[in-house]
Amino acid sequence: MTLILSNDDVERLLTMPDCIEALEQAYLDMAEGRGISRQRSDCITPTTYGEDAIYGLKSMDGVVPSLGVGAIRINSDIVTNPLVGNARRRVKIPAAPNNRYVGLVLLFSTHNGEPLAIFPDGVLQRMRVGATNGLGVKYMARENARSIGILGSGWQAETQLTAACAVRKIETVKCFSPNEENREAFCARMTQLLKIPVTSVSQPEEAVAGADIVMCSSNSLDPIFFQGWIEPGMHLSSIKKPEIEPDAIRAANRVAVHTHDTSPILVVAKGANFREDTKDAGWNAANKIDFKAYPALPELISGRAVGRANDAEVTCFLNNLGLGYQFAAAGSVIYKRAKEQNVGIGLPTDWFTETVHP
Amino acid sequence: MTLILSNDDVERLLTMPDCIEALEQAYLDMAEGRGISRQRSDCITPTTYGEDAIYGLKSMDGVVPSLGVGAIRINSDIVTNPLVGNARRRVKIPAAPNNRYVGLVLLFSTHNGEPLAIFPDGVLQRMRVGATNGLGVKYMARENARSIGILGSGWQAETQLTAACAVRKIETVKCFSPNEENREAFCARMTQLLKIPVTSVSQPEEAVAGADIVMCSSNSLDPIFFQGWIEPGMHLSSIKKPEIEPDAIRAANRVAVHTHDTSPILVVAKGANFREDTKDAGWNAANKIDFKAYPALPELISGRAVGRANDAEVTCFLNNLGLGYQFAAAGSVIYKRAKEQNVGIGLPTDWFTETVHP
Repeated sequence: MTLILSNDDVERLLTMPDCIEALEQAYLDMAEGRGISRQRSDCITPTTYGEDAIYGLKSMDGVVPSLGVGAIRINSDIVTNPLVGNARRRVKIPAAPNNRYVGLVLLFSTHNGEPLAIFPDGVLQRMRVGATNGLGVKYMARENARSIGILGSGWQAETQLTAACAVRKIETVKCFSPNEENREAFCARMTQLLKIPVTSVSQPEEAVAGADIVMCSSNSLDPIFFQGWIEPGMHLSSIKKPEIEPDAIRAANRVAVHTHDTSPILVVAKGANFREDTKDAGWNAANKIDFKAYPALPELISGRAVGRANDAEVTCFLNNLGLGYQFAAAGSVIYKRAKEQNVGIGLPTDWFTETVHP
Repeated sequence: MTLILSNDDVERLLTMPDCIEALEQAYLDMAEGRGISRQRSDCITPTTYGEDAIYGLKSMDGVVPSLGVGAIRINSDIVTNPLVGNARRRVKIPAAPNNRYVGLVLLFSTHNGEPLAIFPDGVLQRMRVGATNGLGVKYMARENARSIGILGSGWQAETQLTAACAVRKIETVKCFSPNEENREAFCARMTQLLKIPVTSVSQPEEAVAGADIVMCSSNSLDPIFFQGWIEPGMHLSSIKKPEIEPDAIRAANRVAVHTHDTSPILVVAKGANFREDTKDAGWNAANKIDFKAYPALPELISGRAVGRANDAEVTCFLNNLGLGYQFAAAGSVIYKRAKEQNVGIGLPTDWFTETVHP
């Protein structure tokens, strides 16, 4: 049987501590060269959806032999770039039937090659982002960190907090995001979920002042955390490149990145209304930050690089690019739990395999 | 509905002329930069299947906006390298349940991103190889070519002949391959299928002497066609790099390749028993043939490069590496025909899409 799982299944099956543990083992393998990842690729073309829209076929692969799983994550996106105020925003459109997005994870066995499971990527996508920044906290934040200031209250913010709370005894959280209504709702929900006070504040400075850990969790294409806000001993955490002002990155005593794959492989068709300036390459060029000069997460986990030497250091973790590898690692847990708990729709594996030599 | 198709469905739905026509349009788009392809990648790791075996997760993507389709082709392989005589051979093992191989094509719509179809890659894999070499024949062989000498009688040989016969008025074929029994059976089958005499011969020289078109269709890692066998006006065609002796390639008046993507992106895990010497990189280094110096198929089709200037020239087409793009182009025809003819198992598209933002 090849399992078809839903986002709800994934949410029920995978706990944050499980996800962190699987990624931690996988990054250790990666540090030793035993686990591997293929850099993300983005194929961008025009689409009949609209003149201002683009079509993107994105994929990333990874294999964790010790967990017996290889994964490929695929996104098939319609993306627009509307002007919001003075700034361009990248907006994915749920253009598929029933107003849905298209993102898939396929899991394969390294033991015999068989397709194990197919499921949408959305829930796992934010779980693995959370777990990755959680590992940043585990290896770089002070052991005695008790407070978080989070900038953002969207889809990613919840798993960022859950992950941080899984690796440190967090007692208080302050949250700022521009939309008060969203922020209040987020704080109420997270107070319940985490069983600690998650307080809404109306200025970003209020959220970060005195915080042991600052978590940026936005979809901003501009900086939201600035050098002037740094305090001794702080750990800074970001889920995408532009969030932390380059001067703040440079001011940290230690910086680590998720991966040395600095940018996706990008293939753009003629006629695609693609705005390079909103993308990694533009950001890299403008800010002259050499991500390869910083240790990557696997080096912290394996002890080859030091995440923090003392309580006074300012540390900074940049989750600069995702890896298919994360989907393989966390996917192995999802598949194992699904089999144990008899979850999912089983389709004949013969539908996804063949007698013909490929 | 997202369609699940079988290899049998694909074989029924896609004719060689349709496949050639779709690829021809797609290559024209590619020449203009309107269609795009992402270089194949191979992730290679150890497998518990056996110490001498490796696990390979391979993927390639391509998008043909004019046909409205993006495709990703995925292989999840168990591969061994047994010694056969003095030579190493690369052997894929059907290790998945029911002794099956694992290769999949996923098609997506560029109009709205939706997953259109999922099907095994085996039948399409050899159809597109055939169609590609068929286009090589169309643009490089003499207009009055009437005879083929084919070296090989395996899985790929059938579609090689079918494709050549779709673009030239072929009257006779001679076939050599080392295993007499296979060769005789192949000739009998192809005589019926093509309705022209396909004759079995016991030496490769007999097959190629006097042939207007020489088609190499083997899985050999060593040359099977040599410079000394070249005759004026011949078209040489190969489905993989090592088949035509490098001196024979250099002796041709015009050479074209399928693609300037010369080698896959290769990521190899520690401990994988991977034999570099059987692979592209080793061959490239040893033979100092610069594939980028030759025009690629899209340039022939768009008229930017000349395939043949007169009947005396010796031409050579090297199908040096596959592209996900081919699966998108031919896949668009398969999907269209499947919808027209109501073929395939329809699964709810909601299973492969999501309300969650990926």
